[in-house]
Parts: sequence; C-alpha cells; structure tokens
Amino acid sequence: MERVCFRFYVRTEMIDEYKKRHAAVWPEMLQALTDCGWKNYSIFLNEKEGTLIGYCEVDDFAAAKAKMSKLDVNTRWQKYMQPLFPQDKRADESFENFVEVFHLA
Amino acid sequence: MERVCFRFYVRTEMIDEYKKRHAAVWPEMLQALTDCGWKNYSIFLNEKEGTLIGYCEVDDFAAAKAKMSKLDVNTRWQKYMQPLFPQDKRADESFENFVEVFHLA
Repeated sequence: MERVCFRFYVRTEMIDEYKKRHAAVWPEMLQALTDCGWKNYSIFLNEKEGTLIGYCEVDDFAAAKAKMSKLDVNTRWQKYMQPLFPQDKRADESFENFVEVFHLA
Repeated sequence: MERVCFRFYVRTEMIDEYKKRHAAVWPEMLQALTDCGWKNYSIFLNEKEGTLIGYCEVDDFAAAKAKMSKLDVNTRWQKYMQPLFPQDKRADESFENFVEVFHLA
C-alpha cells in the first residue's frame, strides 16, 4: 500500500465555492474513486494561499490515477471544477507529488 | 479522531541529512509519539523546495502536541534537528496547519 501526498492550487477567490462543492461531491464521483482504489483520501487547504494538499492510501497510485482519468464521471467532474483552478491543465493533471521520508504506524 | 496536515521546511542543502535522520529516528522518540497519541504519521518531502508536509491521525492534535512538547526526548530531538531548519523556531513550533475540506473513507 502506498501513502500518497500531492499538492495543487485553487484560486483564492474561489475557495468558498471549492469548499461548497467538496462538501457535496457527486456520489457517483465518490464511488468511482473507491472503485479505482482510493482510500482514506483527504484534501487539506491553506486558505491564505489556496494551496491544497491531497493525501490518500492506495495499492498503486499511478494505476489508480490512470484508471480514474479514463472515467466519464471524472472528465465531467474535472470540467466542472476547472474554473476554480488557476492553471489551464485539469487539476488531476497538475498534482505535484511529494515523497514520503518518514512513517510511524 | 482528527486527520491533521501541516507544513514546515528543511534547508535544501540539508535534505540528505534530513532523510538520513528520518530513516533512523530514535526508538525513544517514536515511542513518545505513539504514547502521545500520534498515529499513521507520515512526513512527505518536495526535494526541490525543501517543503515538508506532515500527516497524522490523532484523537486531539492540540493536546498531543502539547504533551509531546513537554517531553525531554522531544526537546533533545528538536535541538538535534534544529541546524537542518531555516527558521529560528523549533520545527514543532513552526508547523502551519491546513484545514481538511474533503474526506473519503
């Protein structure tokens, strides 16, 4: 099992909307994440900067991301979220991965 | 149970040393973290910047941090780690907390 940490960004003026949408993620999107192997998935926010940190546990992150990226529901979700992000790329194509250097169970 | 995410920094020229020390954290320090309630604790690194992200699960993070900060082993560990950090403050006094905005079990 991999523990995964990645960073991305939301426009600071869109933070309220980001929070609202993430308090009500489409059930079909949640099911797709679960089906693709994402577990214990959290997103954390720094409100001043719009910095987002994703953390999740997954057997094979590259495979889970690839599987997810092919799903229609994910394409629709990313399109829906796009105006909230500063970059032109989809959020899930902009993740900057961090490397685990310590773990205590 | 709280899921906690915080950010801090290591000097980029000290990254190798940081990794080395975190591959061999003192057993007494690990035990202290466990005794103070830190669970599933990971530290993730961005090597280009020296940005560190901590993630852990704990019943009450403020209480666990306060408990930890009083322990002699923690004082010794923070002193030992201090030269690796850019700030004058102890690393554990420099954590910037992020707020959880999404969770999928």
